[in-house]
Amino acid sequence: MAELRREPITRMWVVITNDHPKGPADYLPFKPPYRPQEEGGPCPFCPGNEGMTPQETFLIRERGKGWSVRVVPNKFPFFHIEGGFDRRPDGMYDVMEAIGAHEIIVESSDHQQNLASMEPHQIGRILKAYRERLIDLEKDRRFQQFLILKNYPGLFNRHPHSHLLAMPVVPQRIDEEIQGSLDYFQRKERCIFCDILKEEIAAKKRIILETVHFLIFSPFASRFPFETWIVPKAHCPDFHRIREEETEDLSMAIQSLFVRFSRLLSDPPYSFTFHTSPVQERFHRSEYHWHIETRLRIGLREGFEWGTGFFVNPTPPEVAAAFLRGIEG
Amino acid sequence: MAELRREPITRMWVVITNDHPKGPADYLPFKPPYRPQEEGGPCPFCPGNEGMTPQETFLIRERGKGWSVRVVPNKFPFFHIEGGFDRRPDGMYDVMEAIGAHEIIVESSDHQQNLASMEPHQIGRILKAYRERLIDLEKDRRFQQFLILKNYPGLFNRHPHSHLLAMPVVPQRIDEEIQGSLDYFQRKERCIFCDILKEEIAAKKRIILETVHFLIFSPFASRFPFETWIVPKAHCPDFHRIREEETEDLSMAIQSLFVRFSRLLSDPPYSFTFHTSPVQERFHRSEYHWHIETRLRIGLREGFEWGTGFFVNPTPPEVAAAFLRGIEG
Repeated sequence: MAELRREPITRMWVVITNDHPKGPADYLPFKPPYRPQEEGGPCPFCPGNEGMTPQETFLIRERGKGWSVRVVPNKFPFFHIEGGFDRRPDGMYDVMEAIGAHEIIVESSDHQQNLASMEPHQIGRILKAYRERLIDLEKDRRFQQFLILKNYPGLFNRHPHSHLLAMPVVPQRIDEEIQGSLDYFQRKERCIFCDILKEEIAAKKRIILETVHFLIFSPFASRFPFETWIVPKAHCPDFHRIREEETEDLSMAIQSLFVRFSRLLSDPPYSFTFHTSPVQERFHRSEYHWHIETRLRIGLREGFEWGTGFFVNPTPPEVAAAFLRGIEG
Repeated sequence: MAELRREPITRMWVVITNDHPKGPADYLPFKPPYRPQEEGGPCPFCPGNEGMTPQETFLIRERGKGWSVRVVPNKFPFFHIEGGFDRRPDGMYDVMEAIGAHEIIVESSDHQQNLASMEPHQIGRILKAYRERLIDLEKDRRFQQFLILKNYPGLFNRHPHSHLLAMPVVPQRIDEEIQGSLDYFQRKERCIFCDILKEEIAAKKRIILETVHFLIFSPFASRFPFETWIVPKAHCPDFHRIREEETEDLSMAIQSLFVRFSRLLSDPPYSFTFHTSPVQERFHRSEYHWHIETRLRIGLREGFEWGTGFFVNPTPPEVAAAFLRGIEG
């Protein structure tokens, strides 16, 4: 079982997985635990191989055509659904069981697709799967925070998929954003994200794309070259309260953005995460504003950022936005 | 010139370098700005090529043998020594000039050396160079924070070298540690690092090496496989107040640790950073406890950590410490 340990100085939680501890041999050479189709085996996410994954928790079926989106529990989860909620001391330290959920959203039945090649209506189905799973998992009162994230290309399987995590604690980065939003609200009685949207619309120079319901822009203090945020214009703390017409609009915005990335930087590797308010009455924050943060995995990232939490970005956001605006999406 | 921009939500500073903004072509394919000796050119850090670097700021000469450690300003600095200290608004945002210093410590005249192959007395000279530069740079009242860091192997040059940065703001990670230390001190009237040392010495299972003046251990909530901290046993906020006998002891501890890494994981890539209190009376924190954090760059690191500040570590620190203890250093 995995456990959550709290770093006592900064109070950051770390997941330590200790059921199969990795020793030096596991890192020599780089050995991923699981990459079936690259070893020539069948892809567990392709139609016909559904038996290779646990029973799905959600499915979208197309009339007469099989499934188009499928959600399954991760066979190698960071968090386990079974277990109690108890926290305990270990000497001066704090530990708890890493309970939670870790599901995989198989984004298409087609192994070769990606967000830049998909039709917007398929992206809409993926968004619907995210939303439905969050609405369902929210009923489990042990979970405080959801995280949707995608790495492209996938690390162990190239079949298009993303991750959904339900966690028993609020991770540090989200907590910092929430604290920042609360501080700002206390001073101004306004949402800081809503103010950023106004500022960016007035300044124009960092906007990549504006749709009816979303603003897509390079944030002022971009940590990464071509870092991009997708922020709903209407204040809403929770992604899973998204309305139908917003989902449609967002599908088109996502498709347009990833086509731009693909054309501009020749199909670059990327990661994105959905940032949404913690759930459960005690932790939910109406001052927060959900959004998507996207990062391209290009350029060098080394000790400086890690040692300091200090990022150096050689592509100013105004330059990045101008490039991305100029490419047709 | 580079500028520092403050992310308005989390209040994290980001360095945006805009003198030569990098567009898509600079990332296609991966193009480092500078790797002379790998392109077959001469190494600017080797003896005889001193003219390729700016004038040194510090030098250790061996009688009749030329220099053994040389410190030079970085030709491609993140921070510039010239410039004013003024902060200014940009709409709702905060900006300041990225003034500071960025020096390179050339750790040996021998291109092929590394910390695992050097004699402890050479490591002692490097530590002396760090200390002397910090004592000198502390006189510049614009600087709040020093950072010493090393990436092995070097990204643009394999000649053994490390970085010394003087910054006009306290970076986020250090600030979080300082806030954590202050909180703990207010509750307990004790240093949290001193308490961690006592806890680790009592628990034994995460200790790698104990010397007269230092404890080298795998921290309880290790974020990375084989993460290792080197912490002085005597409370001291500032690395550059290190005493002569502590420097000698530390040189042997560092050499022993990097020999262990090298043997156990066959010369792995690593990064380390010195965490030391901010300087100048207004920012200095006597509650803080300087130390070195070391990370091996092995295993997969992707969107999860970045999106959440949440780390997953498949090598529990007790396992890592047992492996590292067992290898002769």
